[in-house]
Amino acid sequence: MSAGESLRAIRERKPLVHQITNYVVMNETANATLALGALPVMAHAPEEVEEMVGLAGALVLNIGTLSSHWIEAMLAAGWAANQRGVPVVLDPVGAGATAYRTDTAQRILDEIDVAVLRGNAGEIATLVGVAAEVRGVESTAVGAEPAHLAREAARSLGVVASVTGPVDHVSDGERVAAIANGDPMLATITGTGCMSSAMTGCFLAVAESPFDAAVEALVAFGVAGEEAARGARGPGSFHVNLYDALAALDPGTLDSRAKVS
Amino acid sequence: MSAGESLRAIRERKPLVHQITNYVVMNETANATLALGALPVMAHAPEEVEEMVGLAGALVLNIGTLSSHWIEAMLAAGWAANQRGVPVVLDPVGAGATAYRTDTAQRILDEIDVAVLRGNAGEIATLVGVAAEVRGVESTAVGAEPAHLAREAARSLGVVASVTGPVDHVSDGERVAAIANGDPMLATITGTGCMSSAMTGCFLAVAESPFDAAVEALVAFGVAGEEAARGARGPGSFHVNLYDALAALDPGTLDSRAKVS
Amino acid sequence: MSAGESLRAIRERKPLVHQITNYVVMNETANATLALGALPVMAHAPEEVEEMVGLAGALVLNIGTLSSHWIEAMLAAGWAANQRGVPVVLDPVGAGATAYRTDTAQRILDEIDVAVLRGNAGEIATLVGVAAEVRGVESTAVGAEPAHLAREAARSLGVVASVTGPVDHVSDGERVAAIANGDPMLATITGTGCMSSAMTGCFLAVAESPFDAAVEALVAFGVAGEEAARGARGPGSFHVNLYDALAALDPGTLDSRAKVS
Repeated sequence: MSAGESLRAIRERKPLVHQITNYVVMNETANATLALGALPVMAHAPEEVEEMVGLAGALVLNIGTLSSHWIEAMLAAGWAANQRGVPVVLDPVGAGATAYRTDTAQRILDEIDVAVLRGNAGEIATLVGVAAEVRGVESTAVGAEPAHLAREAARSLGVVASVTGPVDHVSDGERVAAIANGDPMLATITGTGCMSSAMTGCFLAVAESPFDAAVEALVAFGVAGEEAARGARGPGSFHVNLYDALAALDPGTLDSRAKVS
Repeated sequence: MSAGESLRAIRERKPLVHQITNYVVMNETANATLALGALPVMAHAPEEVEEMVGLAGALVLNIGTLSSHWIEAMLAAGWAANQRGVPVVLDPVGAGATAYRTDTAQRILDEIDVAVLRGNAGEIATLVGVAAEVRGVESTAVGAEPAHLAREAARSLGVVASVTGPVDHVSDGERVAAIANGDPMLATITGTGCMSSAMTGCFLAVAESPFDAAVEALVAFGVAGEEAARGARGPGSFHVNLYDALAALDPGTLDSRAKVS
Repeated sequence: MSAGESLRAIRERKPLVHQITNYVVMNETANATLALGALPVMAHAPEEVEEMVGLAGALVLNIGTLSSHWIEAMLAAGWAANQRGVPVVLDPVGAGATAYRTDTAQRILDEIDVAVLRGNAGEIATLVGVAAEVRGVESTAVGAEPAHLAREAARSLGVVASVTGPVDHVSDGERVAAIANGDPMLATITGTGCMSSAMTGCFLAVAESPFDAAVEALVAFGVAGEEAARGARGPGSFHVNLYDALAALDPGTLDSRAKVS
């Protein structure tokens, strides 16, 4: 399937995407999921995560505002997802900024079968032991070329690695796709990385493989970002345009706009 | 009183509406409450909910992102509200999706005197034991006609039932009002159900009865949705327009736009 | 330095501003921080707050949706900030509305060296023992003139007091600056007080003194509010414009628009 075909499938099947994510972006990733055409649900209680994930087409784990109860919920949901064949996305927000975040991301990777690891270069580099500088939740300097980093992360962590930045790189350990869609304005609002992880969850629920899902999600989100930047007067109006653009994505023309190499 | 008269009273008295709600929509329901003309306050600590609800004109309980501490806070706030005559709205988000949510909604209904139960058809059907399909927080199929469902819920649960959908139905067990205001775009963003529960809380603080409050709130919110859809280019701009439209609601003309039968 | 010079420094140095804040406004204060030109990070786990604050140029504590675990995190972060010379802003949201909030704000002031206390008149009056009426998180009546209140708060609490309202007043106990920038629409959306505290954190990371930071932040935020009000059709579009306006603030002309006396 292509990004356009997967988008059409998302809109027809409306997969439920279970998200255990951070407080900062819950509304934003829920609305991005709805705008794309899938159904979001946020649930983090240990009493219900296993039941909820059983209804879902994908599970998105995001460590952006961690605490110990939430880690237990993420692990419980992840285990249940693995048992039921529900694919899992991990967004290791801020790995490298504090030991707590690095350790938690590592623990999830150790205990859960993660289909796609989606992060910025600093976060991914931290998890493969490459030198990186992470300030808060921003990647500021990484001692590795991103295509190489994506391949290394995929191989050493046993995931599809989705490393986003000015150009995104996705690797399954063999192939590396570079996606040049997007716009610099995506970096001017908080939560666009988290949204791209949510989009990856939506595509995982329908795509042929985790590699395809990761690439297709970044194409779709990047094209929406390009559209949103048109006429934006700043980060506020760009943010509003982004939901409009996600909802307006056309499955029939999406593939013609993909910049994948 | 009518919807217009109650809206005028809200803007004059600015009732405090205490909301214990989910992480996804806290900002959205607070801003909708302010835009309508009331004052929102979010407080969930057991140490303060009883004191806070004593200052409030209504209490809104919403189980959208549950955990055990929050359930205890909801019960404590609900008991205090009942003792002080502060009316309570319950929004049973996701009842029917997981046993935890169904059980929690049922427990609140058992232990608290709920004035208005505001939910979608699947959630309300679940709570009266009618067959329903709930995926995450979306109602997808219900084995009952909505007017009948509202009346049954009101009778069996001892509440005013406010069942929202393409046409909303409100019943006190005897009367059933159908409200045809609104716009399909309300379903394209997350939290509009939660907002309609918050609006119900605002009207409860001033209206003559819980039945009137539930009807008037859905008229006002539906008319705002109709206005917001004008010129909206998608869910992002609709969302922005919705707050503008709530603030622009005119008490003098609101009743002429009500589609209630 | 002036507001314009400090803004230029924020954009050049991009200080990390660690925020432990309430659920309602996390997205909003993060986006306002980014729009101004600094980097926000939200982290509240006891396991990581000390490490995170060590990376930060300022710490913002906001008690808007309290619970006991969060108070412990705020204290731990505050102690670490004090030890490392990282300046601390406290936003005592709702002090005066419940004893829990008043006591918590007082406890933080007692145990942490707070550089700037930023609140509305009711909250600040409560903390200095002046009669005040606080409904939820709104200040409705205060028995003191605001310039006097700011000076008294600064003296008795040993902070720079930043009392916002139709005209803002900042005092270090000796000087009192009145800032007349802003627009009444700032009061129509939730979280603008919290945003002004976040802005204060951004300026604290670069300004010459806490007094200068508090004044400069309110000038910048007020000018952005003035710009955002142009063409706003209501609170929704004003909210969007506010982020655009923060990002568009021009260091070269900001000082010419300051209304400080």
